[in-house]
Amino acid sequence: MSQSSKSFRGMRDILPGELDRRTHFVSMIRSTYKSHGFTEIETPVVESLNVLLNSGGGENEKLTFRLLKRGERLDLQGAEGPGDLVDGGLRFDLTVPLCRFYAENSAKLPRPFRSIQIGNVFRAERPQKGRFRQFLQADIDIIGDPSPLAEIELLIASCHALHVIGLDGFEVHLNDRRALEQILSNLGVAPEEFSPILISLDKLDKVGPAAVISELADKGQPVARSERILEILSPGSASALGAMAAAGVESGVIESLRTIAGHLHDSIKGVNVKIDPLCIRGLGYYTSTVFEITHPKWGTSIAGGGRYDRMLSRFGVDAPACGVSLGFERIMGLLQEEGVSGSEGGKKLYLLFDPRSQIGEALVSAREYRRGGYQVVLVPHREGARSPMKRLATEAEELKSQGAHDEYWFVTVGEEQPPRLLMH
Amino acid sequence: MSQSSKSFRGMRDILPGELDRRTHFVSMIRSTYKSHGFTEIETPVVESLNVLLNSGGGENEKLTFRLLKRGERLDLQGAEGPGDLVDGGLRFDLTVPLCRFYAENSAKLPRPFRSIQIGNVFRAERPQKGRFRQFLQADIDIIGDPSPLAEIELLIASCHALHVIGLDGFEVHLNDRRALEQILSNLGVAPEEFSPILISLDKLDKVGPAAVISELADKGQPVARSERILEILSPGSASALGAMAAAGVESGVIESLRTIAGHLHDSIKGVNVKIDPLCIRGLGYYTSTVFEITHPKWGTSIAGGGRYDRMLSRFGVDAPACGVSLGFERIMGLLQEEGVSGSEGGKKLYLLFDPRSQIGEALVSAREYRRGGYQVVLVPHREGARSPMKRLATEAEELKSQGAHDEYWFVTVGEEQPPRLLMH
Repeated sequence: MSQSSKSFRGMRDILPGELDRRTHFVSMIRSTYKSHGFTEIETPVVESLNVLLNSGGGENEKLTFRLLKRGERLDLQGAEGPGDLVDGGLRFDLTVPLCRFYAENSAKLPRPFRSIQIGNVFRAERPQKGRFRQFLQADIDIIGDPSPLAEIELLIASCHALHVIGLDGFEVHLNDRRALEQILSNLGVAPEEFSPILISLDKLDKVGPAAVISELADKGQPVARSERILEILSPGSASALGAMAAAGVESGVIESLRTIAGHLHDSIKGVNVKIDPLCIRGLGYYTSTVFEITHPKWGTSIAGGGRYDRMLSRFGVDAPACGVSLGFERIMGLLQEEGVSGSEGGKKLYLLFDPRSQIGEALVSAREYRRGGYQVVLVPHREGARSPMKRLATEAEELKSQGAHDEYWFVTVGEEQPPRLLMH
Repeated sequence: MSQSSKSFRGMRDILPGELDRRTHFVSMIRSTYKSHGFTEIETPVVESLNVLLNSGGGENEKLTFRLLKRGERLDLQGAEGPGDLVDGGLRFDLTVPLCRFYAENSAKLPRPFRSIQIGNVFRAERPQKGRFRQFLQADIDIIGDPSPLAEIELLIASCHALHVIGLDGFEVHLNDRRALEQILSNLGVAPEEFSPILISLDKLDKVGPAAVISELADKGQPVARSERILEILSPGSASALGAMAAAGVESGVIESLRTIAGHLHDSIKGVNVKIDPLCIRGLGYYTSTVFEITHPKWGTSIAGGGRYDRMLSRFGVDAPACGVSLGFERIMGLLQEEGVSGSEGGKKLYLLFDPRSQIGEALVSAREYRRGGYQVVLVPHREGARSPMKRLATEAEELKSQGAHDEYWFVTVGEEQPPRLLMH
């Protein structure tokens, strides 16, 4: 019996046409971020578990793929639990590795440091349609700038990148963890209750207010207080900043949100910038500003991020930090939905030749056509044999259906004719 | 005590200047391979252990990083050995995943299929200087072409890629596993002895003939026979093909090597193509042609590959296959040695502004300079404060020392002067 050819559970293969599309969009995002003064780094996909765990990564930490120790370090008999058997893990995001990277290499980096990271992350989630256990993220971060200029630069750059790859009509949702905490605190909520309450509130747009209030009641929250929280956080047509001020949020926090929103509004055309008290973000490591970018045609956010001023301190470095992550897989889905074609495509040339007598001639001819900018595919074809044109056209169709945007040409070695178009 | 910021043992961080260089060379290799009609695919870095193990990957299989099972699949008490605790592994090469990929997706792929793969592979080797446990490989393969045209195309394309990134004066070493096996067989060696003998012979250039003969004696080989093997495989100035023929290698094998060498010689300028009976290649999965590319300034090969016609059959597919892998890390080292600068470099512009009053103006100005092709870095600078120019020059120096090739400019918002050059 032969070995199964399925990919590892929840992970997937990327076919040529689709990969061309992805590479094209990745390189547009990269060059846009570079034009905003960011520089790219790379960290290994494996990190020590000490680095990944207890990092504020919340639920994602539980989804870490862990690596079995090797050699004499692996002691199966002496192990008291799975933790003794493992030493590394696959990164579940790019933020935790960035902090470790910055702490290790800061002497060699500009200050503030503006980083780009484009790479795969891994989460052992239950596989489901459209959700994969290896997926690409594209992050930018600014380490070392405590001012709202960091948020402003990050959001301008990420909206610019989304525009450049062909998206429009998206919305920026801005909030501040401190506002949420101050509102709760002023209503008498104890700090240790913040996190469970925020987790319930985060579900509001999915399950509606009644379900949230009932869930909060299960967690011991009085209904009246839950109703009051929802009222403040859902100000409807009223000003969100006004509602925050009325609920006792400190003026410094309100001023920070107002500054960020104001500059974004002036700088990014055609994008709706919204103070959204219900923009919560699940991760534990955020300390103040949080934000998400949404698109009316996509159910979940396509980008998200915030400020995590305390994460570097784990590694003994005192530096403020802020970042935004593009959900590349969701963006690819949305681009498909929107019919954005993407890659420019090359000119493929099928070079037909007789393998019995024309190999040398075909190799010379291929070199010349490559110099002319063609991507040359050698196609052995014996004179008198069945023509390969139908097969080639079928293959070109398949590549197109995967998302490729190449032109397909053909030419026969030894004939006087120039290349002819097979398919556009 | 704070958490260590070291990267996972044997893996490493890549700094901005170095990553720019790498990205530049990767994209040159990719576009050269595309011009030869290859198309790029991507497979997950994790594969089922069933796929990775017993794949003919030889020593590399032992170096596989393995993933602990998760959830209820993990049964620590019931496990009889480490094998029961793991289900996936990090790929140790790109060839085994390619075969799985082809078997799974062949209906959607052209025939023959010319693939490019550029990605990280992982080997749990003892860490040592210059050798990492995560490193990049760039492979091309042709699946579905049994003729020597596959070898010819692969080697022309890979030599072309090496030329394009700036290397010259390298050598192609060609051999055929069948020739080795026939020579041994004709000297009375039993098939099960082939592999241990080849492993010893592979060390010849490192340890010299006396040590090889003594090692072979330890493995039970008569000294006279070992001497005779070495004599045939080291023909000195005589023709290697002649020596093979005299030792009884079948004419089909000799003809195949002659055809490949002849077309390479005609097609690749300035490259020495050599039939090398001692080009052995460690991996078990090769079935006939094997080859390596070496450079006089580098101790180990910078590329290698061969034909592996039986590997697809593991997955129930009957297709011939042949591939070549560039050792990207070695090539990067060699390029450094050779002083090849690589990346074109962008124009960085430090935009100085006063954060108390000029944020809006700076954002507008940054947008305009970006449109003019600059990579704009915002630099808050209060009038009267210490000038940041010295710090910026130091940072630019550091990026250059990492391998970046950017120009550095600066301009002050609100001044009438155009950008001035800080450093070239």
